[in-house]
Amino acid sequence: MSKVKIIADAIKNIPWEDKPSGYHAPVWRHSQNPIIDRNPAKGISRIFNSAVVSYGETFIGVFRAETIDGRPHLHLGYSDDALSWSIEEVGIDFVDETGKAFQPNYAYDPRLLKIEDTYYIIWCTDFYGASIGVAKTTDFKTFVRLENPFLPFNRNGVLFPRKINGNYVMLSRPSDSGHTPFGDIFLSESPDLVYWGKHRHVMSKGGYGWWQNVKIGGGPAPIETSEGWLMFYHGVTGTCNGFVYSMGAVLLDLDNPSIVKYRSKNFVLTPEESYETTGFVDNVIFPCATLHDGETGKIAIYYGAADTRVGLAYTTVDEIVNYVKATSETVADDATVGRM
Amino acid sequence: MSKVKIIADAIKNIPWEDKPSGYHAPVWRHSQNPIIDRNPAKGISRIFNSAVVSYGETFIGVFRAETIDGRPHLHLGYSDDALSWSIEEVGIDFVDETGKAFQPNYAYDPRLLKIEDTYYIIWCTDFYGASIGVAKTTDFKTFVRLENPFLPFNRNGVLFPRKINGNYVMLSRPSDSGHTPFGDIFLSESPDLVYWGKHRHVMSKGGYGWWQNVKIGGGPAPIETSEGWLMFYHGVTGTCNGFVYSMGAVLLDLDNPSIVKYRSKNFVLTPEESYETTGFVDNVIFPCATLHDGETGKIAIYYGAADTRVGLAYTTVDEIVNYVKATSETVADDATVGRM
Repeated sequence: MSKVKIIADAIKNIPWEDKPSGYHAPVWRHSQNPIIDRNPAKGISRIFNSAVVSYGETFIGVFRAETIDGRPHLHLGYSDDALSWSIEEVGIDFVDETGKAFQPNYAYDPRLLKIEDTYYIIWCTDFYGASIGVAKTTDFKTFVRLENPFLPFNRNGVLFPRKINGNYVMLSRPSDSGHTPFGDIFLSESPDLVYWGKHRHVMSKGGYGWWQNVKIGGGPAPIETSEGWLMFYHGVTGTCNGFVYSMGAVLLDLDNPSIVKYRSKNFVLTPEESYETTGFVDNVIFPCATLHDGETGKIAIYYGAADTRVGLAYTTVDEIVNYVKATSETVADDATVGRM
Repeated sequence: MSKVKIIADAIKNIPWEDKPSGYHAPVWRHSQNPIIDRNPAKGISRIFNSAVVSYGETFIGVFRAETIDGRPHLHLGYSDDALSWSIEEVGIDFVDETGKAFQPNYAYDPRLLKIEDTYYIIWCTDFYGASIGVAKTTDFKTFVRLENPFLPFNRNGVLFPRKINGNYVMLSRPSDSGHTPFGDIFLSESPDLVYWGKHRHVMSKGGYGWWQNVKIGGGPAPIETSEGWLMFYHGVTGTCNGFVYSMGAVLLDLDNPSIVKYRSKNFVLTPEESYETTGFVDNVIFPCATLHDGETGKIAIYYGAADTRVGLAYTTVDEIVNYVKATSETVADDATVGRM
């Protein structure tokens, strides 16, 4: 039993490896990474930045698939152990609320989570430019698109796994039409998943370290813990040869998640292994999903590696929460209620 | 009486000059422009991009005032004839919904309009970057800020003067942190001025002519007419020496204003006079308000000139609607229901 509690169901068959002896960092890699490598299915060149959930005794995922025409779409995948995945060769068919076909022009970087009895996919969609798309399903057969919550341009929409004070809550990272000369995380609320408002600033790029000085973006759906909402996110730095994406971790206030309680000043995972440092886009670790066990506190983090592969990493809620608290550095006015 | 009807109250003392003989264009300038020139009040260097309404037998306005510290704020102004304005030396004090002081860090390009018994100011505000601010007043003494409707970055928020199908409707122009490498106009709806959604694309930059090929942005609050919502807007082209802002006109569908019915392929006013071509920012015509007379169809258009002065121009609803219809060119998928 963990000291810090994860407020979530148990996942008895969560994938797991203990921390290697002699390893110092708070997040460690699965020994058989990448769990999904190049050409994972016919017509699919690369899979990365993807999201999984437990589903009965098995697992299901929504994967960012770069098909061989080079345009990203979302494909379903199935697994019994959350390690070995069978990926659908054909992408998800979305419909609108009247049942009419309603495909996004492109779709990438999905998040996937369950609220009450419904699963939601949130992804980056085309709305005369990049913005956030939302769809719901109860059976992973019919996927109904809802209204786009925000105007373009926006990326990294992350829905919380339950309503807070009666409203749905989503994080997002407003951006521009390119590689974003800004990049803070904001929070928005909705009573009905149609109309969104009460927008608040949550987290700024920057800080003493340089690993998150260009932009940041939400990651997997936040994990409810007894110490706050635990969220892994990505932080980006710039080099003479391009961006480097690392993973950070933050604890947001349970009742008002626009308040940052603790934020690790250090990255918790950065591109080091060849499957992370080399690929379609070098030097990218991009977390999009976790499996987390409300019984033991085990956390398995799914991340995109170099825009080419899926990697898996582990931590425990005790280890990561203690690390974030021990190394905390909030940036700008992170620690206060987000200003309007 | 005009053939095309303006659905609005009469303004018996609307400022007016007939079209000069021999003048061909559909919008003509006030002969004594600019109506507000440099240093219009103590401590205010320039006023431009400002909005006025009729108020009883007089007129009241919200002005973009560049104070001598070079930061824009909103100042009230009063006039008996809508031509000669007395500008307050001190900016508007905003409060939040609990009555606590709530000043924007900066405020510019206001729009001002009445919906039912309440006046609304919409402006470009600081929300960790440029976004849309909204405040309401019933007496022009107490100004209560409402929730910011959108995430940053956004500019040129324009509220319609009545609810449409039960919802408030706002146009806006998503932008970036600088001078915007994109620039289309979108529409959003709200049941309560707190939560916004059902975002739709309305108008694209571009077209055959080049005067609006860089970006466009909504102008004065749309005027309800028997032929649709008449809106003046700004269109921007780029040159080797910077941007040039002209004024265009468009008719949007009354019931679904994400549909462009007619859109003039030509500008209807472009910088020509010295007070428009030379100033803090050369070559800018930026319309923010109209007075319009439901009885005669007269329209007086208030526009910022060269980010330095306020200009006034005239047209009639018959003249401008006929011109827009006769010269119409819709761009991209303007003419259809805006895609999600």
